[in-house]
Amino acid sequence: MWQLYQFPLCPFSRKVRLVLGEKGEPYQLLRESPWERRDEFLDMNPAGQTPVMAEDEGGLILIGSQPIIEYLEETIDRVPMIGGTAPNRAEIRRLTMWFDEKLYGEVVRPLMYERMEKRLVHRASPDAGALRDAMRQANTHLDYLDYLLDHRRWMAGPLLSLADLTAAAHLSVADYLGGIDWRGHDQTRQWYAGLKSRPSFRPLLSERMEVIGPPSHYDKPDF
Amino acid sequence: MWQLYQFPLCPFSRKVRLVLGEKGEPYQLLRESPWERRDEFLDMNPAGQTPVMAEDEGGLILIGSQPIIEYLEETIDRVPMIGGTAPNRAEIRRLTMWFDEKLYGEVVRPLMYERMEKRLVHRASPDAGALRDAMRQANTHLDYLDYLLDHRRWMAGPLLSLADLTAAAHLSVADYLGGIDWRGHDQTRQWYAGLKSRPSFRPLLSERMEVIGPPSHYDKPDF
Repeated sequence: MWQLYQFPLCPFSRKVRLVLGEKGEPYQLLRESPWERRDEFLDMNPAGQTPVMAEDEGGLILIGSQPIIEYLEETIDRVPMIGGTAPNRAEIRRLTMWFDEKLYGEVVRPLMYERMEKRLVHRASPDAGALRDAMRQANTHLDYLDYLLDHRRWMAGPLLSLADLTAAAHLSVADYLGGIDWRGHDQTRQWYAGLKSRPSFRPLLSERMEVIGPPSHYDKPDF
Repeated sequence: MWQLYQFPLCPFSRKVRLVLGEKGEPYQLLRESPWERRDEFLDMNPAGQTPVMAEDEGGLILIGSQPIIEYLEETIDRVPMIGGTAPNRAEIRRLTMWFDEKLYGEVVRPLMYERMEKRLVHRASPDAGALRDAMRQANTHLDYLDYLLDHRRWMAGPLLSLADLTAAAHLSVADYLGGIDWRGHDQTRQWYAGLKSRPSFRPLLSERMEVIGPPSHYDKPDF
């Protein structure tokens, strides 16, 4: 069985878990805190980041959410998450990259740093200005998601795809950390409510990161 | 014919051009300076970044180096650059991501900011400390490339792949901007000399960015 090195609030590990869940591929979680820079983990992945996915003892080691997911797409025929024609697939990958770079860099990473890493690693308080900036950026991103969902059934077209799972993975971490104000974003809220109800998503919502708790609406499909 | 929106020192556009060149796929260059935030370009790509690759007037628009290259891999059978078994392909994508994130973020982006963007956009002088940091990081990255080439014929295994083209694209921009000290990195230097001699690479080496000139060794295959 696959073993996934991750921590509960890693958005890139959540993205991989959602794909594994949708495909019905069993996996086991191993807790890894990249900020501890554990030697055995750095030996597996010199970049020192989660997710890393390993086959049983001595087997294949896959590193990084996109390489892992492309591998799963290539080796498991059922439930494609990068599906359709080549142009469809390019649009799914464009949006996935947008969420992994922009939504993560402008919203999720600053929230994780201020609300999680500062608390766990530096024993410091979050910076109110940085939090406000991240929440303002989150609002702009939600506007773009609303715009996409005004024109399409799912983020990248008529079918659920990796673009949806990636956006939801990042938003779920931002929401856990209190960074999302859902008011005025009905399209995205409805889309996210639908995703929260999926069997692939529910295990993620029930997990907690030590010390840090989510807002009360976080794990409710109806919020 | 494909039209590629790019500027001479964009490492991600260089990566796409090397793939197009290796596959023998014709393309036409269109100059785009993302820092000017031209409206028509933002309409094509809301992220405002190069590369963007477009079919003739009104045709398909592909955005971002990795989605463009995955598209080319899926639609052109000849000369695969993400080839081999699924685990080989995962290793190629892992290294590609490493170079696109780490080598770019720690070396190429700061050099571009200090030596290009400050000059072209802000009319300011580079910060000597930031340049020193980037060059120190470059040295660490070259150590890792030496290590890979001690164990393998090419970066990701026995065959030339996207991992080589990506590393070379980023290094070529860093080298243009005077950020690479090749002394003590014989393995990587020999590998890079071989790449510089390829027909896919030579057009890139003859181009110049206005105002900024490269060091004299930059376009010499033997350096």
